[in-house]
Amino acid sequence: MGHAGPASGHTFDVDTSVRAVGENRFAADVTDRWNALGGGPNGGYSLGICLRALGQVLPFPDPLAVSAHFLRPGVPGSAEVRTETIRAGRRLATGQASLIQAGKEVLRVVADFTDLTTAAGPTAVFAAAPDLPPPDEAVDLTAGGGIPGVTITDRVEYRAAQTPGWVLGKPSGLPQAEFWMRFADGRNADPLSLCFLVDAAAPVVLEIGQRSMTIALSVHVRARPVPGWLACRVATRYLIDGYHEEDFEIWDTTGKLVAQSRQLALIPTRAP
Amino acid sequence: MGHAGPASGHTFDVDTSVRAVGENRFAADVTDRWNALGGGPNGGYSLGICLRALGQVLPFPDPLAVSAHFLRPGVPGSAEVRTETIRAGRRLATGQASLIQAGKEVLRVVADFTDLTTAAGPTAVFAAAPDLPPPDEAVDLTAGGGIPGVTITDRVEYRAAQTPGWVLGKPSGLPQAEFWMRFADGRNADPLSLCFLVDAAAPVVLEIGQRSMTIALSVHVRARPVPGWLACRVATRYLIDGYHEEDFEIWDTTGKLVAQSRQLALIPTRAP
Repeated sequence: MGHAGPASGHTFDVDTSVRAVGENRFAADVTDRWNALGGGPNGGYSLGICLRALGQVLPFPDPLAVSAHFLRPGVPGSAEVRTETIRAGRRLATGQASLIQAGKEVLRVVADFTDLTTAAGPTAVFAAAPDLPPPDEAVDLTAGGGIPGVTITDRVEYRAAQTPGWVLGKPSGLPQAEFWMRFADGRNADPLSLCFLVDAAAPVVLEIGQRSMTIALSVHVRARPVPGWLACRVATRYLIDGYHEEDFEIWDTTGKLVAQSRQLALIPTRAP
Repeated sequence: MGHAGPASGHTFDVDTSVRAVGENRFAADVTDRWNALGGGPNGGYSLGICLRALGQVLPFPDPLAVSAHFLRPGVPGSAEVRTETIRAGRRLATGQASLIQAGKEVLRVVADFTDLTTAAGPTAVFAAAPDLPPPDEAVDLTAGGGIPGVTITDRVEYRAAQTPGWVLGKPSGLPQAEFWMRFADGRNADPLSLCFLVDAAAPVVLEIGQRSMTIALSVHVRARPVPGWLACRVATRYLIDGYHEEDFEIWDTTGKLVAQSRQLALIPTRAP
């Protein structure tokens, strides 16, 4: 398979690990190593924990179509994941997972799993990969260290043709971006971690001076990526009354689309 | 509100109606009036039944972010919907619904509901509405009657600048389309029926000579539409090993985006 798996000891695998504590019940520790802008665990990281649990109960290895509804902010600390196998077929299996902290559900996930290596059918692509300079010639966006408190920027590396406007205090006014991304510790991406990575960059509405809070996220994993850098494209096209979608694509270095996601998010209301 | 509601007696409302038969349990009849290409009830129609049930248990009127996972083909006939209220907050409520036929789950839905009239926040739009001739000057795609057996084409009207290539037996090779859509019986769209309408047109991969089977569908309702025709835009950009997304947008006649959806679908394998 060519990617570092859960036995690798990489931080993402350690920090998303779950241990069975009963039938369809798992214990997990939400660490403070994946905190997002605004504080608190990144939603994609919490999703990764749920998918790890589903991977233990479903008969296929790869998340294919993942729907996540974020109910409350998570916090670093202990958590429980409850799972349900909804259907296990020959080609797909569908399961549900709930992440629970302090007795309250933080995240509800429904996911179809498959074995992507058995996918067979026609291929036709009507869009191009992001147009980026080679990673070695691109600007390392975390070269001077990540953003203090935003610990996810210690775990993920980002490179782009130029420093984003919002980082320089000059939002571009256009909520779209293209950049490279990879785990900082050398872990290669696999289908499960792609479901985290689609949520691992700063919200692109920062380019119009806004912050963002995810309500729901859907991810489609389209192929197992080859090892190495991932080319990403993100855009928000419709901000309406505070609600906006964010579309995210991840391509591997062979020029293949490997994941596509869309989230619905809300501009958080500031205290008066 | 300006739209015809469930009490209107329109076919969509009658055919998605549910009656409570216990706590979080509803009975429904899946009719044969919404059959899709390939036979069997349209997925968006089945989703409409689940959303009707969720509308009865959640404290807000409008579906906002809807995730549907299609598990098995549904059939015309009786069905049960089981619901769960996951969380009810001040602004959003989240619920789950399962559509069950003959003891087997056909569809699993998780949905956030809200009151869209209370949405407040910035608006910024970075894309344009579909560029269509006025409905009265467009080609009526069901003028000669719908497609036999595809009963949904008796319930929904479609108009476009020209007849699609696939209808003429000459697929364009480009899986994208723009067209007008509305209920044939004059029912105006509301947030719930938009979640059906995003799945109510022919799969756009017909333009590359393929059929399509939905695995998962996510819908974001962005506003309550004004009465009248709906301008639609649909595209598939990535068909990879038989899996493909279909992105769908619906705009009302004021030029406002009212719904956006993405589905993951599969090219059905033909018998050898």
